[in-house]
Amino acid sequence: MEMNRASSLPLRRQVEEYIVTKITKGEWAVGSRIPSQRLLAEQLQVNRSTVTAAFEELTAQGLIAGHHGGGTKVINNTWGIMANRVPADWGAHVESGQFKPNLPMIHTINEAEFIPDIIRLGTGELGPELIPNDDLTRLFSGMPSQVISLGYSEPKGNLRLREEISRYLKRHGIKADPDSILVVSGALQALQLISIGLLDRGSTILLEKPSYLYSVHVFQSSGMRFIGLPMDSKGLIPDQLTAVKKEAGKAIVYTIPSFHNPTGTLMDLLRRKAVLDVCNKERLPLIEDDVYHDLWIDAPPPPPLKSMDHSGNVLYIGSLSKTLSPGLRIGWVVGARPVIDRLADIKMQSDYGSSSLSQWAAKECLRTGMYERHASFVRSRLREKRDYLLDLLSTYFKDLAEWRKPSGGFYIWLKLVPTIDPRVLFDRARKQGILLNPGVLYDRRARHYLRLSYAYASMKDMERAIPALRNLVIELGE
Amino acid sequence: MEMNRASSLPLRRQVEEYIVTKITKGEWAVGSRIPSQRLLAEQLQVNRSTVTAAFEELTAQGLIAGHHGGGTKVINNTWGIMANRVPADWGAHVESGQFKPNLPMIHTINEAEFIPDIIRLGTGELGPELIPNDDLTRLFSGMPSQVISLGYSEPKGNLRLREEISRYLKRHGIKADPDSILVVSGALQALQLISIGLLDRGSTILLEKPSYLYSVHVFQSSGMRFIGLPMDSKGLIPDQLTAVKKEAGKAIVYTIPSFHNPTGTLMDLLRRKAVLDVCNKERLPLIEDDVYHDLWIDAPPPPPLKSMDHSGNVLYIGSLSKTLSPGLRIGWVVGARPVIDRLADIKMQSDYGSSSLSQWAAKECLRTGMYERHASFVRSRLREKRDYLLDLLSTYFKDLAEWRKPSGGFYIWLKLVPTIDPRVLFDRARKQGILLNPGVLYDRRARHYLRLSYAYASMKDMERAIPALRNLVIELGE
Ligand SMILES: Cc1ncc(COP(=O)(O)O)c(C=O)c1O
Ligand SMILES: Cc1ncc(COP(=O)(O)O)c(C=O)c1O
Repeated sequence: MEMNRASSLPLRRQVEEYIVTKITKGEWAVGSRIPSQRLLAEQLQVNRSTVTAAFEELTAQGLIAGHHGGGTKVINNTWGIMANRVPADWGAHVESGQFKPNLPMIHTINEAEFIPDIIRLGTGELGPELIPNDDLTRLFSGMPSQVISLGYSEPKGNLRLREEISRYLKRHGIKADPDSILVVSGALQALQLISIGLLDRGSTILLEKPSYLYSVHVFQSSGMRFIGLPMDSKGLIPDQLTAVKKEAGKAIVYTIPSFHNPTGTLMDLLRRKAVLDVCNKERLPLIEDDVYHDLWIDAPPPPPLKSMDHSGNVLYIGSLSKTLSPGLRIGWVVGARPVIDRLADIKMQSDYGSSSLSQWAAKECLRTGMYERHASFVRSRLREKRDYLLDLLSTYFKDLAEWRKPSGGFYIWLKLVPTIDPRVLFDRARKQGILLNPGVLYDRRARHYLRLSYAYASMKDMERAIPALRNLVIELGE
Repeated sequence: MEMNRASSLPLRRQVEEYIVTKITKGEWAVGSRIPSQRLLAEQLQVNRSTVTAAFEELTAQGLIAGHHGGGTKVINNTWGIMANRVPADWGAHVESGQFKPNLPMIHTINEAEFIPDIIRLGTGELGPELIPNDDLTRLFSGMPSQVISLGYSEPKGNLRLREEISRYLKRHGIKADPDSILVVSGALQALQLISIGLLDRGSTILLEKPSYLYSVHVFQSSGMRFIGLPMDSKGLIPDQLTAVKKEAGKAIVYTIPSFHNPTGTLMDLLRRKAVLDVCNKERLPLIEDDVYHDLWIDAPPPPPLKSMDHSGNVLYIGSLSKTLSPGLRIGWVVGARPVIDRLADIKMQSDYGSSSLSQWAAKECLRTGMYERHASFVRSRLREKRDYLLDLLSTYFKDLAEWRKPSGGFYIWLKLVPTIDPRVLFDRARKQGILLNPGVLYDRRARHYLRLSYAYASMKDMERAIPALRNLVIELGE
């Protein structure tokens, strides 16, 4: 038995896999002693220290344990093993369970976000200074007792909240009565419910490439296939939908028409109409993910596709996460009644509805006008932050990158001129206290890209991070 | 083409299905006119009014629409159709999507729960008078600004909350550091995450029969098979686990050892040890659903199986829903670190974590001791309500039913002596303003049973409902 030294998997991990396989297959039974570290090192022709490290990891994972009598015993071969079969390589698939794990880089990002003082240069989230903590506190301190129903919620979510959402949507040109609205725990949950509740395994999703959707695994985990379509400066190209639809079979479209994540692209009115027409003609149901709609900077975006949809072809998703607070976990899906009924059913079966506290707070924010006031405040601040970041880029990246000025949303899609391994750039930046969102998260082939966000980092942080990034790019670039 | 008059499906529904099939198959294209009501009535040999009703329903569902020019056109064949393929018969499976819909009776119950003044005699939820609205309001009005992090949450949930849960678990004999705890949006979500994240399609779940788990579809929707085991007065019977395991293949155990839903059964200490031993011996991973643990009435239950688990074989689930408030949507899963890591990963991919407001409130309830105080208040009230319901049963059902006195939790598992179609009893009771939870929801064969709950209904309501139920049972019984 020899380890594979050419593998991208470190030797320690290979030793771990070796031991786990022995346990899974039952060759090393629970309660039995496994070979000593010395013996294993010999058998596998690796250093003793490598085996020690593998033992330590598996001990931490609760699979094996040192024994008073000396030696090491197998103590678990059930849950631990199930969870342990996670992918060894970046982007590989999990073997157990039906859900794909997050990419390791996303893990690292999720965890690094909680490192104090790290500069989050790509985070798709309002910075702490843009979250209305005080307003929300005031809301709650004025909360009349008995006003929140703290029981299980109605299947589609609190009716008063759905009425407020209905009014809000009307201002955006969308007519939807509360019965056609489902309250969800954020837009991501809406996508998850759609993937498990409406689509068959093997369905095809046509979407922009790059896209936010590549960075989450809701659809792939349910066995859907992606066909990513290149975009132009106005987003999805209708002709391409027609062309691809022919080979795609059973397909739906997913699009982020307003301030696209990660490119910042805004679909103009004509393009919206054209996309809608093609979808109607080709019988392509369409998911419109519109979570950035209210975050325009230069001018309000055209009306949502949903507002022009007369056949129920569009399933519309919104959220409070990007404008108010992601911690509330409140979003909505809007569509034809039977579709919403079905999604509500699955939502009830998944978590019995969203937090009543959050639903109450969301309702109050919409009802009192605080949402609109805050959105307008955020817009003005985003304008400053965007302009500041653009200035810094002009100063430090003129010769090193290309980008477009976004007219709203959070993101600048930066194309680096030099060639750099994204993983290396990511790791080196992180060591310097800068957290990046590499383009490959949104399109595996976008190795030259970074998603920058001006929403999270403060201007002071940008001022520190951009020059540092420049130096890194020069140092590592080929 | 003739409709099937012997089918349990009403004619109107059959006509609907007929039309939907035509649309799905593309025979009736979007934009095209469909046959007139008169013509269809003739072709299908049904009354014109039946066709009219079907047209109305499909119009409401957004599939067809009356046309100014006269006649009716197909206007949608995408989302509407996808969602429309819901099961026609009670218990039938859905065809589209991967998730099974709730049983129609559960739908009816979910909706009926919002009928004002209906007496909820089976609801598994604290009555409004037992939910600490005032305490929670006070909590929030004292909430210091900036204290709640309203950004996206850490992958496993707010650390401060996990620390409080860790302390709480310690009082129950469970040693778990915050890293082995995942905050979830209620126990139901824990089950959903386990089903999609840890188990393979085709795995077998061994569980008590009846069980709460039969009334939700999280596991079946993920393609799991159930083997329900009969219980005795102490719950699961260890020998049966051994026996069934042989034929079950890859299997796990799900159990509710404390104040079982729906039977109220309490597993004693010896039985707990025996079950754990068998699971360890048979390498059966075990899910311990312990959401009723703190709701003992006569004496505290034995320590959780998890507290005696040294091999990580037990995955432990708790929740604030039954003791404090289901609207908070806060629960937890406790297990070996890699298992929790994996579940956290899927949770992040499903909804980016639970509401920060709810997490904050939950943390404060635990930290300030309010949780314990409230649990003790709820216990004393449950004792009164249980005793009251038992008294009423002794008075009105001595000759009509059998039951055991539960020593905690919410439920009395009432076995009716007369034979009555559960659907008929349910419908007739509902017409009299009484909402029942028929036993068949928890075991298809438990047609003689009702799950009564003394948690929700007030004593005044019980006083009205129990005699009325007696009359119904006498009237309908054979
Ligand atoms: C396009 C898009 N959709 C959905 C989401 C998820 O938002 P929520 O917090 O509402 O789940 C995001 C957040 O990154 C996003 O960018
Ligand atoms: C045994 C059991 N587990 C889980 C749940 C779901 O509880 P939660 O509200 O925490 O999701 C219930 C509620 O009915 C239950 O009875």
